[in-house]
Amino acid sequence: MNERHYNFSAGPANLPLSVLERAQRELLCLPGAGASVMEISHRGGPFRAILDEAEANYRRLLAIPDNYRVLFLQGGGRLQFAMVPMNLLQGTGKSADYILTGTWGNKAIEEARNVGDVRVAWDGRETAYDRLPEAGELNLDAEAAYAHFASNETIQGVQFFDEPAVGEVPLVCDASSDLLCRPLNIEKYGLIYASAQKNCGPAGVAVVIIRDDLIERSDKKLPGYLSYANHAAEGSLYNTAPTFAIYIVNLVAKWLLDEIGGLAAMETQNRRKAKMLYDVLDESDGFYKGHAREQDRSLMNVTFRLPDEESNKRFLAEAESQGLDALKGHRSVGGIRASIYNAMPVEGVEKLAEFMKEFQRTGSAQK
Amino acid sequence: MNERHYNFSAGPANLPLSVLERAQRELLCLPGAGASVMEISHRGGPFRAILDEAEANYRRLLAIPDNYRVLFLQGGGRLQFAMVPMNLLQGTGKSADYILTGTWGNKAIEEARNVGDVRVAWDGRETAYDRLPEAGELNLDAEAAYAHFASNETIQGVQFFDEPAVGEVPLVCDASSDLLCRPLNIEKYGLIYASAQKNCGPAGVAVVIIRDDLIERSDKKLPGYLSYANHAAEGSLYNTAPTFAIYIVNLVAKWLLDEIGGLAAMETQNRRKAKMLYDVLDESDGFYKGHAREQDRSLMNVTFRLPDEESNKRFLAEAESQGLDALKGHRSVGGIRASIYNAMPVEGVEKLAEFMKEFQRTGSAQK
Repeated sequence: MNERHYNFSAGPANLPLSVLERAQRELLCLPGAGASVMEISHRGGPFRAILDEAEANYRRLLAIPDNYRVLFLQGGGRLQFAMVPMNLLQGTGKSADYILTGTWGNKAIEEARNVGDVRVAWDGRETAYDRLPEAGELNLDAEAAYAHFASNETIQGVQFFDEPAVGEVPLVCDASSDLLCRPLNIEKYGLIYASAQKNCGPAGVAVVIIRDDLIERSDKKLPGYLSYANHAAEGSLYNTAPTFAIYIVNLVAKWLLDEIGGLAAMETQNRRKAKMLYDVLDESDGFYKGHAREQDRSLMNVTFRLPDEESNKRFLAEAESQGLDALKGHRSVGGIRASIYNAMPVEGVEKLAEFMKEFQRTGSAQK
Repeated sequence: MNERHYNFSAGPANLPLSVLERAQRELLCLPGAGASVMEISHRGGPFRAILDEAEANYRRLLAIPDNYRVLFLQGGGRLQFAMVPMNLLQGTGKSADYILTGTWGNKAIEEARNVGDVRVAWDGRETAYDRLPEAGELNLDAEAAYAHFASNETIQGVQFFDEPAVGEVPLVCDASSDLLCRPLNIEKYGLIYASAQKNCGPAGVAVVIIRDDLIERSDKKLPGYLSYANHAAEGSLYNTAPTFAIYIVNLVAKWLLDEIGGLAAMETQNRRKAKMLYDVLDESDGFYKGHAREQDRSLMNVTFRLPDEESNKRFLAEAESQGLDALKGHRSVGGIRASIYNAMPVEGVEKLAEFMKEFQRTGSAQK
């Protein structure tokens, strides 16, 4: 009843056990605050210390330059889909380029189209979004207000390891499902946003990293909560911040720094975990068929199918009976999806890899 | 270091100790879910059960009729300030009436003015928002798209106990700081919204109760996250919900039902707590001077001043040294504010009342 399983959910996803344990210890009383972190004012000293530390930890982890702001906002990636064009496209007289590599990119475009002119600079639809654009395939507008891409598509399982080259146009990235999985060169970006519930923390907060010059584009007539300028001017305290979610985001960042040893070490571990599963696919003589093209395979979401729907169902049922949860692929792609974000332990992936080999060998992994 | 104080913060505010204790017990593993409530999919069975229970508990507590929806959204009261006019005013060709009884009402009006025509149906500014409108003072438009009021103003400490009479115009209420403090007749309202961090739960979620016919006003071109129609159509799962915050909101609602005995019992306790402090004011021969007019005094926020700024400072410092925290009034009003929401224990208010009497008697309450 109270046993923790290995949870391959695409998000909200795993949190590091040590983070949960600390949050549990401190839940009734944040040391020195006289109350739970959920009960204290967002403008008081104890919470400001947490917020400042969270920002400092993000700056350290990602080597964020001084001319970028780090904001913690509500509304998830979905609200960012609207805030990006409302702040950066509206009123510019320009259009925005969108590089379309999967389901989430499509949702971002829908919102942008409600705001202004959108050009699709590349669309992977023809091959069911199983690959990323090659160099030279992008149809970019050198005058675009910005160029948008999703660094990782959770449903299809494709991930960029190099940013698309967009020249001088500000690059905007939906990194909801892979921020903090590896080091980034922040200077290549104008704006990066990520809902927290994959690598960064719990659902209910999004991280936004934005270059100073882009903040100035925000129109004063925007709904107050939707203006990056308002949030930047108030240091993420334009209104009551989602205090508990930010507290967990900070603990996760500390875990990356203190227990993992930073993002280069995290990337090494992520590559090791992903290789374990992709090796099983590649050595399965086609029993497991990956969705993504080899060089575009995601480190975060491993997507594949079994030979038939009946095997697929049996795979899911037997996996769950062994404490390997939430492996069902998204309904739009089907098959299996193993989400192995930062906090998925190596042992969980090992157990899944063993399960997969046994399932293929015997047509079952039942003991 | 780890001792809980009495926390009179205006919000985020106290949570019931039994709620915190249960959340602590379940933090590593929600029974039956194999993971923390922060780690599970918002679309999976275990979280859906929580969401359904939260809605059912709100329906029971407030006797919400079937033609109203209960939504749990991100962005706080501040995003509601914009969502209300964007959904209910925009495109109607009408104006909206705002009854202005304090600071939060003013902020709601600012947002509405960015969207459409606003009429101020009453403004308490002349007397520093120390009172509510009398019957007959409201200057209402019978054709308004809606009429908006804040049922409790946290900064000034005034609270409505009867809804303003607005005829057939849909009544919209910002109940951020007093929802669940007493029973309501929901049928008098078109829409009620409340950020959770006073009476309902932690920061990071807002409760919206909306009548079906008003949902239909939402324009399809609104930013997706800002459309009540989208959230209603998806039962609060239009995007990833703030799962942990909703889990706590549900535990607080259960506490009200199972431990307090419902909202009538809660109101009795709230009246008892508020009377303890207002009695000290009234029996202080003017040493403590309340801000709000007697008949409009809030049950949630007791606002008052001491004879001079020096006494005020000493009061705050000595209170804090006795574990009575966060009593400083808002900078715009000054003085003292004791926020005594639902979860403030009777003993906390007793201790503050004793402290106040001792402080007046001796010019100090230092032991």
